[in-house]
Amino acid sequence: MDKKVGIIGLGIMGMPMARNLIKAGFEVTAYNRTPSKIEQLVTEGAVKAASPKEAAQKNPIIITMVSDTPDVESVILGENGIIEGIKPDSVVIDMSTISPQATRKIAERLKEKQAHMLDAPVSGGEGGAIAGTLSIMVGGDAAILERCRPVLAAMGKTITHIGANGMGQTTKLMNQILVAGNLNAVCEALVFAQKQGVDLNKAIEAVKGGAAGSWQLANLGPRMIKRDFQPGFMVDLLQKDLRLVMEGSDLNKIPLPATALIHQLFDSLEAAGDGKCGTQALVKVVERLAAVEVKQRD
Amino acid sequence: MDKKVGIIGLGIMGMPMARNLIKAGFEVTAYNRTPSKIEQLVTEGAVKAASPKEAAQKNPIIITMVSDTPDVESVILGENGIIEGIKPDSVVIDMSTISPQATRKIAERLKEKQAHMLDAPVSGGEGGAIAGTLSIMVGGDAAILERCRPVLAAMGKTITHIGANGMGQTTKLMNQILVAGNLNAVCEALVFAQKQGVDLNKAIEAVKGGAAGSWQLANLGPRMIKRDFQPGFMVDLLQKDLRLVMEGSDLNKIPLPATALIHQLFDSLEAAGDGKCGTQALVKVVERLAAVEVKQRD
Repeated sequence: MDKKVGIIGLGIMGMPMARNLIKAGFEVTAYNRTPSKIEQLVTEGAVKAASPKEAAQKNPIIITMVSDTPDVESVILGENGIIEGIKPDSVVIDMSTISPQATRKIAERLKEKQAHMLDAPVSGGEGGAIAGTLSIMVGGDAAILERCRPVLAAMGKTITHIGANGMGQTTKLMNQILVAGNLNAVCEALVFAQKQGVDLNKAIEAVKGGAAGSWQLANLGPRMIKRDFQPGFMVDLLQKDLRLVMEGSDLNKIPLPATALIHQLFDSLEAAGDGKCGTQALVKVVERLAAVEVKQRD
Repeated sequence: MDKKVGIIGLGIMGMPMARNLIKAGFEVTAYNRTPSKIEQLVTEGAVKAASPKEAAQKNPIIITMVSDTPDVESVILGENGIIEGIKPDSVVIDMSTISPQATRKIAERLKEKQAHMLDAPVSGGEGGAIAGTLSIMVGGDAAILERCRPVLAAMGKTITHIGANGMGQTTKLMNQILVAGNLNAVCEALVFAQKQGVDLNKAIEAVKGGAAGSWQLANLGPRMIKRDFQPGFMVDLLQKDLRLVMEGSDLNKIPLPATALIHQLFDSLEAAGDGKCGTQALVKVVERLAAVEVKQRD
């Protein structure tokens, strides 16, 4: 088992994931665009890398956890990127959510260096990253996944091999189609009931255990009623993911009528300046359409 | 406790509900438009009524379980209807799914006869009706519900008082907004993943426990993959309910962009002759848009 791991990207997700790797006994080499985050992690036991290239030179497994497709391309394929330092038979595990198409191209480039790639995007948000309970959807070679499983197990609870490179990312995007659709259904349902005088807490209790039930209803419905729009998962980040969904939809000719509509409803939320809110703030858009506000009845 | 109950409507739902009342020790008087269903239930211990009026004359509690708003209006307010036979302080429990507006009008008419009404629509489908595990959402006076609770408990597991007359029906329609939205999200998600080569069974396992999870995904996703379109809940019946949702949406000025769209996607399914299929057949509409079929990969 490789006890040395590099990690590129110490953001909301990457930082707690790195901490869980340290806790699990891995020797962690970290790089981040903003150096202060590295210094912080060094005080907790990590080793600093001056570049993704250096992290790749020193580690048989390198994790990337950055924002979007261009960021992953930059840290892997760019100047001083992983590809300049990676050794044969090493593995890059990209845990960001990015384009499945770009993922396959990056995997091809790494293959030219006799290196491997896993796409291993996660669900579970910041809470799951801190608790080490992320769900990890993996694309790439099954034997390479087995080699990397102890590393992934330090950060996640459910680790599922889906198929070849890109399949992890496609599954993550499938996840986001479900998240967006279920969330919007909660918004429309609560606004419909509110404007007709229903006590929403009672109504949620009555329906959540049956065919109408979802994680979004049980977890975010009550927050909407409390007007709690703190981010569990931020609107701007879901929109980034839905942009990847719509890109895949157009490229592969897979029309997604409701997902496209919901992506636009989120645009309206961003237009109102609520991009940094939690996704449950989508209810505000539906509320504005109906000139009513979801809340607890007296 | 009133051990005498009348029931009007012995369809897919009404018949097993009547059987559960008999099993629970109630003396059941039954009426149905098609008499053969009554004869069947008489062999199982029920008493035959010649009309809704007669059922109302003989029972302090009368349940209606028929198809749509006009059917409820007909058996309660029409010729030889419940209103012609009902005694003061008796209760009509309408367990059909109908218009909340019509419900309030019917309750007013019954009040003129010093009689009460509960709107008590159910979720759980035929399976729940047979098992006696329906979820029952109740609108009307709370004290009247308490009087009727033993009757409802013979048919359902969760009985929730939501508020005044109409609130049970509005909550049921809220339930159907969630059902339709979650179901369509499953269809779009699976078609998106299928066309890009994902093994759908693995993908469902990977995402169903998290933020993407729903009853619709866990229960109907696998049936779509198996091409099992047998009805748990029939497309035509969900469409009837969504028609009530859209009526309430227009009447109360509550725009529901995605629900309206999904109602139309179901219209396409009915146009193709699949109205008698289970609601999971909605995936066929999304499949046709993308020229691909959801199925198990080899």
